[in-house]
Parts: sequence; structure tokens; C-alpha cells
Amino acid sequence: MISVSDARRLVNENCLAGRKVLLPLIKACGSVLAETLHSPIDTPPFDQSSMDGYAFFIENWNGHDALTIAGEIQAGSSTDKTLKSAEAFRIYTGAPVPAGADTVVMQEKVIIENNSITITDKSICKGANVRPKGSQTRKGDVALESNQLLTPAALSFLSGLGIREVTVFAKPVVSLIITGKELVSDNNYLEEGKVFESNSMGLTASLNQLNIIADAVVFTDDNEAEIIDAVNAVCDSDIIILSGGVSVGDYDLVPSALEKCGVRKIFHHVKQKPGKPLYFGKINDTFVFALPGNPASALTCFYEYVVPSIAIFTQADYMRHVQLPLLNDVSKKPGLTHFLKGKTKSNGVMILGNQESYKLNSFSVADCLVELEEERDEYLTGEIVKVRMII
Amino acid sequence: MISVSDARRLVNENCLAGRKVLLPLIKACGSVLAETLHSPIDTPPFDQSSMDGYAFFIENWNGHDALTIAGEIQAGSSTDKTLKSAEAFRIYTGAPVPAGADTVVMQEKVIIENNSITITDKSICKGANVRPKGSQTRKGDVALESNQLLTPAALSFLSGLGIREVTVFAKPVVSLIITGKELVSDNNYLEEGKVFESNSMGLTASLNQLNIIADAVVFTDDNEAEIIDAVNAVCDSDIIILSGGVSVGDYDLVPSALEKCGVRKIFHHVKQKPGKPLYFGKINDTFVFALPGNPASALTCFYEYVVPSIAIFTQADYMRHVQLPLLNDVSKKPGLTHFLKGKTKSNGVMILGNQESYKLNSFSVADCLVELEEERDEYLTGEIVKVRMII
Repeated sequence: MISVSDARRLVNENCLAGRKVLLPLIKACGSVLAETLHSPIDTPPFDQSSMDGYAFFIENWNGHDALTIAGEIQAGSSTDKTLKSAEAFRIYTGAPVPAGADTVVMQEKVIIENNSITITDKSICKGANVRPKGSQTRKGDVALESNQLLTPAALSFLSGLGIREVTVFAKPVVSLIITGKELVSDNNYLEEGKVFESNSMGLTASLNQLNIIADAVVFTDDNEAEIIDAVNAVCDSDIIILSGGVSVGDYDLVPSALEKCGVRKIFHHVKQKPGKPLYFGKINDTFVFALPGNPASALTCFYEYVVPSIAIFTQADYMRHVQLPLLNDVSKKPGLTHFLKGKTKSNGVMILGNQESYKLNSFSVADCLVELEEERDEYLTGEIVKVRMII
Repeated sequence: MISVSDARRLVNENCLAGRKVLLPLIKACGSVLAETLHSPIDTPPFDQSSMDGYAFFIENWNGHDALTIAGEIQAGSSTDKTLKSAEAFRIYTGAPVPAGADTVVMQEKVIIENNSITITDKSICKGANVRPKGSQTRKGDVALESNQLLTPAALSFLSGLGIREVTVFAKPVVSLIITGKELVSDNNYLEEGKVFESNSMGLTASLNQLNIIADAVVFTDDNEAEIIDAVNAVCDSDIIILSGGVSVGDYDLVPSALEKCGVRKIFHHVKQKPGKPLYFGKINDTFVFALPGNPASALTCFYEYVVPSIAIFTQADYMRHVQLPLLNDVSKKPGLTHFLKGKTKSNGVMILGNQESYKLNSFSVADCLVELEEERDEYLTGEIVKVRMII
């Protein structure tokens, strides 16, 4: 049985960044760039007016003479005309400043008379209200560095550069195998000894939150041959997650089934509560997590170990850790790291009741997991603890 | 022109919680319950062993006599037999404790000989290693309160109660209308005066992050009749978002088009930068946000006003505000609230460069918006500021 820190280290050491994949921009939100992007164009692509007003050439203007309105340029239009001395062009926000002009005066700062304008803004400077060509990006310059998270703003930016697809780190193909003879998932009636199945829902929904749709969700009995068949059927996945059957009893057949499938065990059993039976292994490039069947244990192990492995694969940072003062006392036996369901408030974190691994009612209203250290026993109100947000 | 706080108040006052909708559990992740749910069953549905071991009736046991193994119960099975005195049943984790037994001794704490066990755990108590029927939920008790956010754990919990669908607050139907004659969205070539369109990408991706798929994305020229047609075509939406054409120039035709469609203006122009031209109105139960066309302005207004309106509709809390010390000095003119692109570090928040509303390069790498107050001018390093996280 290894410590939580060793288990984390082994997951980190054995998981690798995933494939690179070319995606259309809109499919890449939340993904991480796997290439450095250079701007294919200058943006703005031309000297652009930032105001509705009048474009003119400031060096040919003596500071008081009226300028004749020689034409109009709306956004989206352009003109072949070159501005002459003593001329101005009516111009609108976003329109290209015509040849022969270098400055735009706001429409509120002119007097119009007989198709000519008198500029009342005597302090106007060269280049006023003009966004120079290439002032956001220059063609060929780095637009975004590799490993940048693609937020909506980043996608909007790339869209404005005319970039339509990007190479990002792929999301992993994840398959779920839910083992347990007692589990009922497909009807509303419970025979004696059966319980409604929970883990496929919790794990599928957790994956969905990372924008991952489980590639397969397979249910098996507590039967080694069935488990082997299920693993073989999904062995082209990047990550296989099993639940149940991972402890040391006569019907805990997952470790032996995985061994017979050729999975190399990296660790089995972690000094933690809940989730002590956790198993982690690898076959070819596929990571295999076998989680305990108790729903709270399964989800805790998912958040603490599977999510970090997915984060390595996608190079995204899904985990938000904070340090908060405890709002209630809590005690535990030394020897295991505890992950407790908590609820954050403005002034700290409250440890919830019903922490048993078969109960999910506190997990249902929790927004975080609080990590209590292996060797510690008593924690008093006010002590700062490690909190991992889960919403 | 109104203040940011007045604009926020008017959005809050005019937006309402949305429809209630019945969804299958897996579609309800991230939604908020619109009903109080009662457990339809006891969970566990029977007295359940939490260990692999032996079930027996502790009061009939004298503390030292061996017990005959009278049968076996695997998880998912049950037995009609009632345990007699001096008998034990082999039992596995998750299996129902048979009639006539009340306690389970772990398999590690017995000696097996000739089909009988001698219990070595002399301190074992009544009910040990048994999860009593109904100890997680009792049939009829409240399982989750109305207004609870449905996390993966909550869905797993409900799944374990046999609940298959839930009534939640619906997501709004959102339509986008992108106006601007200069915008190119459908090819890779820019004629003189044209720019690549950004806002449909930024707004669509931002909606996707809230699990909302835009119902329609319509592009129009700067032409009042076209804008009116577009608004009328999507007027059955819950929220219509327009971008561009919302200022006061000759080609800013959105406010007049909205008026002709029967939209009642609630405000137009807010004392803020970027996003001063923001318009908010209402027609029947549809909210209308007309955002400025500059991409950084559009996204800032989306985060600051549209997201809160969606949060009222869905009753979910999408916004995470924190207070952080500034890591650099920043100055502004008094008179407008500023929303600046920032990047949080472990010790505070850094204000990024390139804050102009037509530039998205700093927004692309930002993780937050920093709010600087209307009447303030200088902010010094170390001052605590309001930070709204956007990733």
C-alpha cells in the first residue's frame, strides 16, 4: 500500500501528453494549442478609423481653414480616390482611411457648412482616431504560443486573423466498465439484493464536464471472463476506467482479469479514505484506473487521480486548489490521507456530514474535497487546509 | 448614460427565472433543480454488508463458540433461509444480511475449520460492518432540495435512488445577430476595407461554455430592414444578442431597428470602458442585448451583463468573483468604470497590455476581468481590486 503522494507521482510519471489533432476553431474551445500560431495577416489589415468622423491629412492643414468633403467611406467599403490638399473624407468606424489622409476628427468636433467642415478640435494630433495597419498583429508575428488554453476570447482573436482551424492536444478516448452483479441500471424495479447503479452516471457526467463523452459504457457481472472480454473490447481507448471488484475478496476479480489482459500493474491500494483499493496500471499506451465500487470512493478517485491524468493528456488545467480555514473541528485516525466532502463559504470551508463511502448525500451538495494529511489526527476550526474545488 | 451599477440593477430587475423542463439525468448535469426531490426508496434497500466476512446474530453468540457456515450470499444475490442459532453465513460486500443475522465479522478476523468459523474479534459490536436499510436515505425523505446545482455527484446519488429524470430550470434559447458590412466570415480572402469576423466565434464559444448552443447565428449588413428581418426571425428566442451598429453614427442602425421591431429600450449607453454603447431592451419575454461590435467590447459586455441574465434564467451561478491585490500600477481617467483584461498569479492579479477595444491579443491570454471604479483614477500595486474570473 503506497501513500497518496507516491500514487500521485506514479500517475504523473506514467501519463503522457496525448495526440495532436487539427480541429475547426469552434470545436477547440477549452483545448490547449499544440502549435505556435503566427498571424497570417496584419490586423487591422489597413489603417482603420476608430470613429465616425472626417479623415484628412494633418500636415497639409493650417489649423483653421475649412476642408471640402470629397467623398464618403463606410465600414466595409474603400475608395480609389487619393485625398487632395484641403479635402476631407466623411468616414465611419471601421472604414479604411483613404490614401492621402492620416488623421480622423470625430464628427462631434467639426462644423459642417456648404459641403465643407471646419475642425473645432484645435489640439488634434497626427494619427488621432486611426488604428494603424498591423497595430494588433503584424503578419508573421506570433499570435498565440503553443500550450495556450483556447478561451472564447482566444478563438475570437484567431477568427479575426482568418485562422479557421488549429492543432490542439486531443481529448482522450475514455471507456467505462462498470462491474457488479448487484447493480440495476435499466429498469425501475429492484429485486431483493440488488441496488440501483450510480457510477456510470457520476463518471459519465464528470467526463462531460471535461468535454469528454465516454466512448463506451460497459456493464459486467462479477465474472472474470466477462471483465476480460470487456477490457479487450475497449483496449484501443486512451483511458479505461473500471469500477467495482477491485478489493481483495473472492469476487474482486478486476485485478486478476486485468493481469490476464496483459495490463501492467503500477500500483494497487493507496493509503487513503475513501478509495483505498484504487488500482492503476498500463497496457501499451492505455492507462487503466480501477476504482472502488462505492460511489463516493469512485468519484473521489476520479477527481484525485483520473482528472490529473486527463489533464496531462490534454495539457489543460482542470483543477483548482485553494487553501482555506476550516469552519468546524474534524478528527481522523492517523495512517490514511482523508478526502472529505466540503462546502466553501465566504470565510472558509465546512466539512459536511455523511462521509461514508457508500453515501452520496453529502457529495451531492459538496463543492470541494478537503485533503487531510496521512499522519495527522485532530484538525481544529481555523486551521488552513488544502481544498480542491469540484464545481 | 447610466452607471454600471444601475445597468446591473436593471438587468437583474428585468430578467426572470426561465421555464422548467423535465430532463433525463445525464442531460441535467450543470442544471439547477426546479423541484424538491424525495427518495422513492430506502437506500440501502436492505441491511447490507460493508465487508467480505460472515453474518451472524450477535445476541445468540456466547463470545467463543464456533458457528457453522450455513450458506453464502454474494452481492446481487439473496437467500430465503433464516439463520439459526450457532450458524453464520458467508457474505460479501454489498450483499443483503440474511434474516436472523445482525452483524458481520470481517473475513480476516475468523479462523475457518471444518465448515465452521471461530471469531477472533472478541470486541465486535452488534451491527458491525452492516449498513442499515435506509441509512443513506429513507423512502419519502427529501433527497435534494429545489435550487440545488446538479453536479456529477448529485446525479450519481439520484441514479442510486432509481430517479431517472428531473425537473430543472431550462437553458435559454439564445440567438445571435452579427451586424456589419465590413465583416467576412465565409472565405479566406479579404477585399480592401473588409475584416475577418470575430464575434460569432467569441459569443458562440462563450455560450458553449455555459452548455448553451446558439439557436441561430445570423449575419446582416448595416441595413435597417435586414436587421429588422433578422430580429423578427428569431423573436421566439429567450435572449437575442446583437453585435455592432449600436453606437450613435449614421450607420448605427440597431437601436432604431429594435425600436421598429417593438423592443422596449431599458437602457442604452453605460458609463464603462470598453462597452459604452451597450443596449438592453425587452420584447414580450425576450431579453435583447445589443453589444458593441469591437470584439473586446462585445465579450466584456457578454461576461458582465449577458452571463448574469443567463444565470437568472437557469438559476445557476456561473460567475466567480475574487478580491486580489494588484501586481502593477494602473491609472485611468475618472468618469467610466473600466473592465481590464488581467492574469491571476499566486500572489495577485496582473493587468495586461493592449487593452484597446479592437484588440483581442491580451484578452486571448487573460483569465479574468478586473473592475476599476468609475470615479477612481490611480490604483497602486498592492491595492485589493474586484476580479471576475473568466476561465
